[in-house]
Amino acid sequence: MAPGPDATLGEAGEFGLISQLVEIFAGDEHVLVGPGDDAAVLRIRHGHVVVSTDLMVEGRHFRRDWAGGSDVGHRAAAQNLSDINAMGGTGRHLTIGLAAPADLPVEWALDLARGFAEECAVVGATVVGGDITRADQVVVAVTVLGQCTQAPLLRSGARPGDVLALAGRQGWAAGGLAVLGRGFRSPRVLVEAYRRPEPPYAAGPQAAEAGATALIDVSDGLLSEAGHLADASGVAIDVRRGAFEVPEPLLAVGAALGADPMQFILGGGDDHGLLATFPDAASVPSGWQVIGEVGEGEGVTVDGGHYDGPTGWTHF
Amino acid sequence: MAPGPDATLGEAGEFGLISQLVEIFAGDEHVLVGPGDDAAVLRIRHGHVVVSTDLMVEGRHFRRDWAGGSDVGHRAAAQNLSDINAMGGTGRHLTIGLAAPADLPVEWALDLARGFAEECAVVGATVVGGDITRADQVVVAVTVLGQCTQAPLLRSGARPGDVLALAGRQGWAAGGLAVLGRGFRSPRVLVEAYRRPEPPYAAGPQAAEAGATALIDVSDGLLSEAGHLADASGVAIDVRRGAFEVPEPLLAVGAALGADPMQFILGGGDDHGLLATFPDAASVPSGWQVIGEVGEGEGVTVDGGHYDGPTGWTHF
Repeated sequence: MAPGPDATLGEAGEFGLISQLVEIFAGDEHVLVGPGDDAAVLRIRHGHVVVSTDLMVEGRHFRRDWAGGSDVGHRAAAQNLSDINAMGGTGRHLTIGLAAPADLPVEWALDLARGFAEECAVVGATVVGGDITRADQVVVAVTVLGQCTQAPLLRSGARPGDVLALAGRQGWAAGGLAVLGRGFRSPRVLVEAYRRPEPPYAAGPQAAEAGATALIDVSDGLLSEAGHLADASGVAIDVRRGAFEVPEPLLAVGAALGADPMQFILGGGDDHGLLATFPDAASVPSGWQVIGEVGEGEGVTVDGGHYDGPTGWTHF
Repeated sequence: MAPGPDATLGEAGEFGLISQLVEIFAGDEHVLVGPGDDAAVLRIRHGHVVVSTDLMVEGRHFRRDWAGGSDVGHRAAAQNLSDINAMGGTGRHLTIGLAAPADLPVEWALDLARGFAEECAVVGATVVGGDITRADQVVVAVTVLGQCTQAPLLRSGARPGDVLALAGRQGWAAGGLAVLGRGFRSPRVLVEAYRRPEPPYAAGPQAAEAGATALIDVSDGLLSEAGHLADASGVAIDVRRGAFEVPEPLLAVGAALGADPMQFILGGGDDHGLLATFPDAASVPSGWQVIGEVGEGEGVTVDGGHYDGPTGWTHF
């Protein structure tokens, strides 16, 4: 008998939940064996597979009172699909592991699965396997397999003289998080940006086609990700404040919270935009915005000088 | 500066630990991009990829006072590699996610990585990526990619008239766990079997070559895994007690704890042996032991009758 809508994971049990999850996770023609056996079997279209994995922990990466199960599912899928995007590729198949307390409502777990599957569907990816087990707090562990139709774009290819460009929103999710942290629920557009980021999934392959030299996604913070590019490439990167037009909702939040809205843009993460370097401004594709330059040296500067504010999220 | 031997994850920070982990996880010629970028890039030898994922949670799947970091690493790799073995394949590339409290010693995390890499090396597999983040308890999330040189062996292929056979040790890890649960550390051979299972990695591809009809690994318990085979195949399975010779250390533990040692064999998990069905006894390869028969009907019986004891581990 299927557990009722108010059942907990402890009442439904592992197999009660799995049978419902398998219905949510529809396969595709490249999934030869889907969830339910010891492992999934995939037909790979090209000879290379791009792989990434990420953990999301309750109380650290999300709060159940700030985001529904579906939102957390969207975010978990988005941040993993974004890692493939950041190689110039597209996510194809994902696994999801859920560790959760026994009193977690089954409906929350099913919402998580639905949101996760919906986000995967945005790029045509499917869920091929998973695991469920008990833990004191909710942990969502995702692995994504993807493909690149061109050579993958690494962090290490930036050269002096390149321009730095950004695709996607930046600072919106950080603004939403700041608002939630003060107990507010608006501006709604920022809170939604935090709950359900909208990574520019087409921009990764687009950058590869346009001849980008290096690529990374902005998950932890714009300046800290720029720092990873600079370190991996052995170059210096300068970001120009004047390149950003601060969007109206961030101006409003800055005024309400007494904060410089540029902090959300320069130090905020979670929007999963892409940061790339291109050989020159002429090769930057439409939809991308030039925000800085690559030079000789090391480290990241803002307008040519040291930046004092927060540069990104720290995991410990 | 590298953190000292007594440093915690909180002191070392994410990137301090990652730089040390990358040294432990050596790649192979099929890893085009290893750990350190947004994703890893793999060259796939054949057209199919077998994928599985598993979570291990502190206090539920392991205790740090019962097993060292290296042991937990061995077990985490073994149980995932075993899932590929259970398809008739071999694990090739793995990702590992670690969620841990800030006060976890860096040395424990490095031991985990070393044990994990050592177990992977047993089958020639390598670690290609991972993630580290903070959580209240230690959670190890692993995903494994493998290959099958033949068609993958599913749970659903058993037919009435087949024989049921087992490869690898069974009951040893459960005996070791029972011993640890009572505060003892011997028989040492059982405690070690629990801390570092030795899955019969060659037996999966061997079963596929020999024409096995269905295959599963014994992670949760012999009778419960037999139940999964029976359910997926739409058949009944009978297990014969007389097929098992109870090993001496299990006899000793049974006597010491006042327990029937057959309970460890029939209900125990964690050894990651393989359970397969073959068309007849003549096709069962060497190293495998016939332990029962497949018939018309449903469910699992022992010596033709209902079994009252524990059949396996429950995740909630």
